[in-house]
Amino acid sequence: MEKNTRLILALDVLDSDEAIRISKAVAGHVDAIKVGYPLVLASGLQIIEKLVKYAPIIADFKVADIPNTNRLICEQVFDAGADAVIVQGFTGHDSLEACVELARERKKDIFVVTEMSHPGALDLMQEAGKAIAKMAADQCASGVVAPATRPERVKQIRRIIGEELAIISPGVGAQGGSASDAIMAGTDWVIVGRSLYQSADPAGAAAGIVREIKKVIKDSS
Amino acid sequence: MEKNTRLILALDVLDSDEAIRISKAVAGHVDAIKVGYPLVLASGLQIIEKLVKYAPIIADFKVADIPNTNRLICEQVFDAGADAVIVQGFTGHDSLEACVELARERKKDIFVVTEMSHPGALDLMQEAGKAIAKMAADQCASGVVAPATRPERVKQIRRIIGEELAIISPGVGAQGGSASDAIMAGTDWVIVGRSLYQSADPAGAAAGIVREIKKVIKDSS
Repeated sequence: MEKNTRLILALDVLDSDEAIRISKAVAGHVDAIKVGYPLVLASGLQIIEKLVKYAPIIADFKVADIPNTNRLICEQVFDAGADAVIVQGFTGHDSLEACVELARERKKDIFVVTEMSHPGALDLMQEAGKAIAKMAADQCASGVVAPATRPERVKQIRRIIGEELAIISPGVGAQGGSASDAIMAGTDWVIVGRSLYQSADPAGAAAGIVREIKKVIKDSS
Repeated sequence: MEKNTRLILALDVLDSDEAIRISKAVAGHVDAIKVGYPLVLASGLQIIEKLVKYAPIIADFKVADIPNTNRLICEQVFDAGADAVIVQGFTGHDSLEACVELARERKKDIFVVTEMSHPGALDLMQEAGKAIAKMAADQCASGVVAPATRPERVKQIRRIIGEELAIISPGVGAQGGSASDAIMAGTDWVIVGRSLYQSADPAGAAAGIVREIKKVIKDSS
């Protein structure tokens, strides 16, 4: 995944025509488009082939099964043309390893969820977040997912994973996170959903966020 | 899900024709058929409609996302004709609640993973297993998933969840678990994969396991 605009679209829509229209509009402004199961179950895995012409696709499937099933899922996602898969780390080192090994063979990326931003993430996940970040680093995953809504956690996770792994951060825009704050905390890519796909002008909205990112990087350098 | 044979087929194949052939063969011998993402991604969600004529379908998707995404996934699975979804509990009470509430509206079932049997499950999941079982009981899920390979854990989980929730247990057959031991430990349904779908005679193999289950129930009553 090339680091140009440092913006990723979270394409949380269910209709394939709408997905294509929005992806076409933001092409060039985003480094990747993140799709989830709701869209893929509604449109079939073939939707990935249709979207990949506009940007690399990250399948946000929060893969959380035994090693063999994880591998079978990632295989199909990569075969469909996706560049990366988001997996849960909670299921342990061997489940993660099955995904990372396959990604390495295919020259693709695995991003590991370290922490989520909904209230229930405090029940069991938050405590495990640092251990999962360390596991992602030990397994040489491509990167981790950490919330833009909590820049202090992004900084902590950066200290755990070092500079080799990337951080991608959802929660910018409608969820209250700021692209500038996340970038300053050490995020490599910010992930924006509603502020782009619900905008009357997704390209303009994306360009605005990219300008904000470029400005904060310039000002801090 | 009606409790007759107490046997569930884990249909871990990728080809839809094979899936249909095996399901047809075991119809009447199993109370449900469990399908996972590898088959659904390969064949589309429509495969559920094709299989549901042979037995109720449990979508083993290990759903592990934020509440709204969890709900969107379960909606599509129920719309496709499935009777139950297996979800992860480690994403917390609100993620689980989104699934359970929807299932209640639709008169469908949610089963919550308490523990998995691969080595990596010892990293983070096993410690959380009892808390997840309690969460499943608090939320009034239909039941939990606990490994037939560890009957002592099935007994512990039964004590935590009480008698209202069901236990379904994978790991019987090729993975080393015994249907009799799991049933004696308190499991409501045993889940069998390879010993059925790799058998030259899936119906005969299923009938054999059902006889074993009926015998152990009769002998212990």
